[in-house]
Amino acid sequence: MVFTTSSTAPEKVPEGSNAVLVKNLYLSCDPYMRGRMSKPLHKSYTDAFTPGSVITGYGVCKVVDSGHPNFKAGDLVWGMTGWEEFSLISMPEALIKIKYTDVPLSYYTGILGMPGLTAYAGFHEICSPKKGETVYVSAASGAVGQLVGQFVKLMGCYVVGSAGTKEKVDLLKNKFGFDDTFNYKEEPDLTAALKRAFDMRDHGRIAVCGLISQYNLIKQDSVHNLFCLITKRIRMQGFTEPDFKHLYPQFLELVIQYIRDGKLVYVEDVVEGIEKAPSALIGLFSGRNVGKQVVLVACE
Amino acid sequence: MVFTTSSTAPEKVPEGSNAVLVKNLYLSCDPYMRGRMSKPLHKSYTDAFTPGSVITGYGVCKVVDSGHPNFKAGDLVWGMTGWEEFSLISMPEALIKIKYTDVPLSYYTGILGMPGLTAYAGFHEICSPKKGETVYVSAASGAVGQLVGQFVKLMGCYVVGSAGTKEKVDLLKNKFGFDDTFNYKEEPDLTAALKRAFDMRDHGRIAVCGLISQYNLIKQDSVHNLFCLITKRIRMQGFTEPDFKHLYPQFLELVIQYIRDGKLVYVEDVVEGIEKAPSALIGLFSGRNVGKQVVLVACE
Repeated sequence: MVFTTSSTAPEKVPEGSNAVLVKNLYLSCDPYMRGRMSKPLHKSYTDAFTPGSVITGYGVCKVVDSGHPNFKAGDLVWGMTGWEEFSLISMPEALIKIKYTDVPLSYYTGILGMPGLTAYAGFHEICSPKKGETVYVSAASGAVGQLVGQFVKLMGCYVVGSAGTKEKVDLLKNKFGFDDTFNYKEEPDLTAALKRAFDMRDHGRIAVCGLISQYNLIKQDSVHNLFCLITKRIRMQGFTEPDFKHLYPQFLELVIQYIRDGKLVYVEDVVEGIEKAPSALIGLFSGRNVGKQVVLVACE
Repeated sequence: MVFTTSSTAPEKVPEGSNAVLVKNLYLSCDPYMRGRMSKPLHKSYTDAFTPGSVITGYGVCKVVDSGHPNFKAGDLVWGMTGWEEFSLISMPEALIKIKYTDVPLSYYTGILGMPGLTAYAGFHEICSPKKGETVYVSAASGAVGQLVGQFVKLMGCYVVGSAGTKEKVDLLKNKFGFDDTFNYKEEPDLTAALKRAFDMRDHGRIAVCGLISQYNLIKQDSVHNLFCLITKRIRMQGFTEPDFKHLYPQFLELVIQYIRDGKLVYVEDVVEGIEKAPSALIGLFSGRNVGKQVVLVACE
């Protein structure tokens, strides 16, 4: 994907171009963006940001003008855009047209967007869950975690979640239906807390989609107990959402129906004004957000 | 499994018992046995040894007397036995009768025993290999590793192996057919060596069946780069051989034929005399053995 972003507000795409000019409505603050701000110590999912250029990220947009046959003015889309009011997207094929508008449009940055598909693929594809199993979700009130917890319950499994404030732990219990919870910042012995709430069983599966606690560290925390992988015959698997894009259509139909039936809820933390986007993004790394962090840039 | 071991040499099984009395021919020195000598910091695969009781482990035995209908005097078997000259095995159902004797009997402690099935299951079941892929084997001249390397070549993949002495590295190249090798003890920069010989690709699979370098440490080495699991979408999976016992018959038929056809070779390090068993076992942890460590206790 290549972007030509603009800080002015053009009204038309350049003549002969197949770009799409969009008005940005919602911008998504996602932990993976932190990796794009570092020299690639570990190669991140996507290219690094270019200093001096507009930051890119997921967003919900309205097409203002289009040189591409798939899009026309007035279309609502989600996908990679710029952190600015208007963006000229030079390769618009990766944008997804928004089909259902009976839900908040911001949902396409969360439950119906990248974090939603991450939760779906991570649980249903990577974890290969069976009814009656027990699941533990860390960062459980976040953009992905809250949804994983609800997917677990819909499948008839038992789910334990941890989060870092009382408010978030209350959400887990009272809003998302987690069976057991703990505040990892207030447990004097985290190993004991985990053992009490969720004693990892033989043949467990660990789906790893992010390590938010590590992204601001110069040296990452170390893991000393890999031998457990053998004794408990555990599968630990990293994954990223782009590998599961082919599942998006079936994911969307399932989740939109669950939302309409009131079987899935979603908590967002929406700040208004593009000028608040940087602090909203930074807030992710201290856990300031409650639920999915979104920036409202403009109304339709 | 329950054992009643004896340090004397009985001639008969107790009347009315369905135990089997065996003469131990070969005893197997295996790294997992180290875990049975520690308090279970991490629960090991099997129960801890009982101080004062005879050590148990894999071995090749000849039945001297049997109270069990499946076994009769003269049968050759392999399975869990005692580190002694004769063992009374009270639950002989887990013993496997040796079908093919046109290979060295010691092979049933290695290429045709637990390490063999470990190599087979780890490569073919856990790694889900595809022709043309590249495979890296650590401890590559060991009981399991030398066989993994040869399985890889038989499948038409490219295989890199590392070992800790020049002699072992020579074996990898000249005996087992590894495509590339290095001596991990002589590389000034191990990360660079791995990157040169085997740059882990996206969607790689890591089969973990042991961590021999860690077994004598008070505090295990730490791992700092788990984030790679995500960026490269890697699956890391621990496994143990008992979970794959159901594959033993097909494994045996395949491997015995490969041995007869000269397509698989196996290097053993055989010491003679049960009194040498303890030092042979200890030698594993400094890499003194070259190939599978076996103790010859008695000839047929």
